[in-house]
Amino acid sequence: MIYLTRKAEFSSAHFYFNPLWTPDQNLAAFGKCANPNGHGHNYTLEVTVAGEVDPATGFVVDLKLLKDILEREVVSVYDHHHLNHEVPEFAATNPTTENIAVAIWTRLDGKIPNARLHRVRVYEMADLFADFYGETA
Amino acid sequence: MIYLTRKAEFSSAHFYFNPLWTPDQNLAAFGKCANPNGHGHNYTLEVTVAGEVDPATGFVVDLKLLKDILEREVVSVYDHHHLNHEVPEFAATNPTTENIAVAIWTRLDGKIPNARLHRVRVYEMADLFADFYGETA
Amino acid sequence: MIYLTRKAEFSSAHFYFNPLWTPDQNLAAFGKCANPNGHGHNYTLEVTVAGEVDPATGFVVDLKLLKDILEREVVSVYDHHHLNHEVPEFAATNPTTENIAVAIWTRLDGKIPNARLHRVRVYEMADLFADFYGETA
Amino acid sequence: MIYLTRKAEFSSAHFYFNPLWTPDQNLAAFGKCANPNGHGHNYTLEVTVAGEVDPATGFVVDLKLLKDILEREVVSVYDHHHLNHEVPEFAATNPTTENIAVAIWTRLDGKIPNARLHRVRVYEMADLFADFYGETA
Amino acid sequence: MIYLTRKAEFSSAHFYFNPLWTPDQNLAAFGKCANPNGHGHNYTLEVTVAGEVDPATGFVVDLKLLKDILEREVVSVYDHHHLNHEVPEFAATNPTTENIAVAIWTRLDGKIPNARLHRVRVYEMADLFADFYGETA
Amino acid sequence: MIYLTRKAEFSSAHFYFNPLWTPDQNLAAFGKCANPNGHGHNYTLEVTVAGEVDPATGFVVDLKLLKDILEREVVSVYDHHHLNHEVPEFAATNPTTENIAVAIWTRLDGKIPNARLHRVRVYEMADLFADFYGETA
Repeated sequence: MIYLTRKAEFSSAHFYFNPLWTPDQNLAAFGKCANPNGHGHNYTLEVTVAGEVDPATGFVVDLKLLKDILEREVVSVYDHHHLNHEVPEFAATNPTTENIAVAIWTRLDGKIPNARLHRVRVYEMADLFADFYGETA
Repeated sequence: MIYLTRKAEFSSAHFYFNPLWTPDQNLAAFGKCANPNGHGHNYTLEVTVAGEVDPATGFVVDLKLLKDILEREVVSVYDHHHLNHEVPEFAATNPTTENIAVAIWTRLDGKIPNARLHRVRVYEMADLFADFYGETA
Repeated sequence: MIYLTRKAEFSSAHFYFNPLWTPDQNLAAFGKCANPNGHGHNYTLEVTVAGEVDPATGFVVDLKLLKDILEREVVSVYDHHHLNHEVPEFAATNPTTENIAVAIWTRLDGKIPNARLHRVRVYEMADLFADFYGETA
Repeated sequence: MIYLTRKAEFSSAHFYFNPLWTPDQNLAAFGKCANPNGHGHNYTLEVTVAGEVDPATGFVVDLKLLKDILEREVVSVYDHHHLNHEVPEFAATNPTTENIAVAIWTRLDGKIPNARLHRVRVYEMADLFADFYGETA
Repeated sequence: MIYLTRKAEFSSAHFYFNPLWTPDQNLAAFGKCANPNGHGHNYTLEVTVAGEVDPATGFVVDLKLLKDILEREVVSVYDHHHLNHEVPEFAATNPTTENIAVAIWTRLDGKIPNARLHRVRVYEMADLFADFYGETA
Repeated sequence: MIYLTRKAEFSSAHFYFNPLWTPDQNLAAFGKCANPNGHGHNYTLEVTVAGEVDPATGFVVDLKLLKDILEREVVSVYDHHHLNHEVPEFAATNPTTENIAVAIWTRLDGKIPNARLHRVRVYEMADLFADFYGETA
């Protein structure tokens, strides 16, 4: 059993907002992240898949295929887009690092042939990241 | 003569747009960067000052003071803001990495006591950066 | 269940010494780390907390609060201090990367509201780090 | 129980090839990695050992000893060598990142006194790495 | 005048060899780099161009065009190839970091519209790099 | 003319102190860096030499020789030592990043065969570094 991790990047705009709250409540909870003009980040995505090594190739998963899946399912949808305004799963959900990790798990789970999705890690900045392993409470 | 460099970071949204051009011309020139919803980056700023070492302290410039100047003149204005919509110098100028470097030079030049501003370097991403030394054509 | 990780840094002096040993035994066990004048490092701390995402905010834990806790409980005590001489838990215990990880766990465990401390990782240098998950033998 | 991780590096040449396949099949499966002239990488190895902290030293494992073991068992064999042509375990097995992680596990397992080998991580590039924990299917 | 730098990467095999020398002389001069089976690296290339900012775009040079030129002139020729055996300029010249920087300068000089090639930097590893500014003795 | 840069690292303790000043003046000027117990850093040194490429080797300077010179002249003297207490040039001079860069220049200038010392860069942390080119006012 090998765990293989591939990184990808996307640059997106976002802001934090709870429509059930007043502007003052939003500002109190989210500070400068509540600015409705938005700000942005260079996100780094690490996707880990688990599987057995194919003795014919030495691969758990074909890397070109994995890269294409990440591009099609995540990067093309998130990169150079505004997460709140253009990505459906964030229309009514804050695009926090935590929620982005869960959303990417949902986008990828079941799409990678011959391997199991093990972990989605999302860095918002070099000093902050969230991991999701598909665990539900 | 010592050159001292201090880094700072800011996370901002932006997009590229020339109001004299049609939408098709903007798309042709700027590609996915032309998306008017904006996208964003974690920018890294490196500010280099040149000066002589003060024998009483061993400093070219007081680092706390330099950090405060960068915070007041640049980071507080750019960080968690939308460069096109909220930062005056980009109201009618594209916030490209090149133009951001020039704008930060203008914001800092003459503000640092006892040292000469030598270089402003701005990274938009790890694989792209612009340097400005105050040179005019 | 999301695992959120926040980094912090501190720059400290330390050395290794076992008071039950002779100077020669200390030198044999600790080499250049036994120099009683001390040396130092830029330590990087990664603290991982586990919890469920609050649907009102999208957060496992308020990041500003987490940063304040790390600052108050760890960084303000360790940063720009001599670990052997000024930090109580290292008065009679070597400040190795392993022991620093355990000490930071003890400082943080139970202090983070609405989340469980999952892992403390301490880098002494880029090529050496220790992880502690609160496991006792 | 502490998990201690040490990094090491080696620079090697390799290529991918399945001798049971035609050249066209190799090219289809491995693309530019099938070039028999070889290409190369700066590999980064992270070895994690698990154990209890020795109260006399504060160490899980003597770092000088661990470094010497990594040098003797792995780095001296792989570094500045061609993995396919000079390293026995890759004479008939593709030196993929996955297989390198397994091979390094085999080289190290049982060689580290007073600690258990927990994980071998191999980076082929900054955006691709494989983890092996000794798990067999 | 702005200096814009773009990074690219290539993974190649190489070795060092002077055909006028005996094997012993090659080994004495080049050590483990003289191994004729070759070894390899993940090279990082930084190309800096200098020019004035086009007021219509805010660009010194179109980044997509610059990336395409680096890909066509350098990366497609060097990446996943053996520098000694497959790249003409190294048929009789050692592919040292120094010579690679000069060779890439020769490949790029005069090919970048509206900007002057200012510097080619090549990293062989994170702790070793060579800069060439086109200066001849 | 090629500029070749080699990195090295050293981990040292230091503090800032002007013996002509009162404790209050030292605290006002140096803040937490004035703590006489000392703190420490992982310093990164980048040494750049300039020279012509030897056509017989492709080298500006023999890298093994350069590494040995850095080790002998700088690393063995600074690493795992207290700069104020154990390194002669800092007995009466503050070991600031600026002064360390000048001191390393003095240690290396004239010691590297067949190449000219061009620049000494010292990082105290990832976000702060000083460059010295041997320029005197």
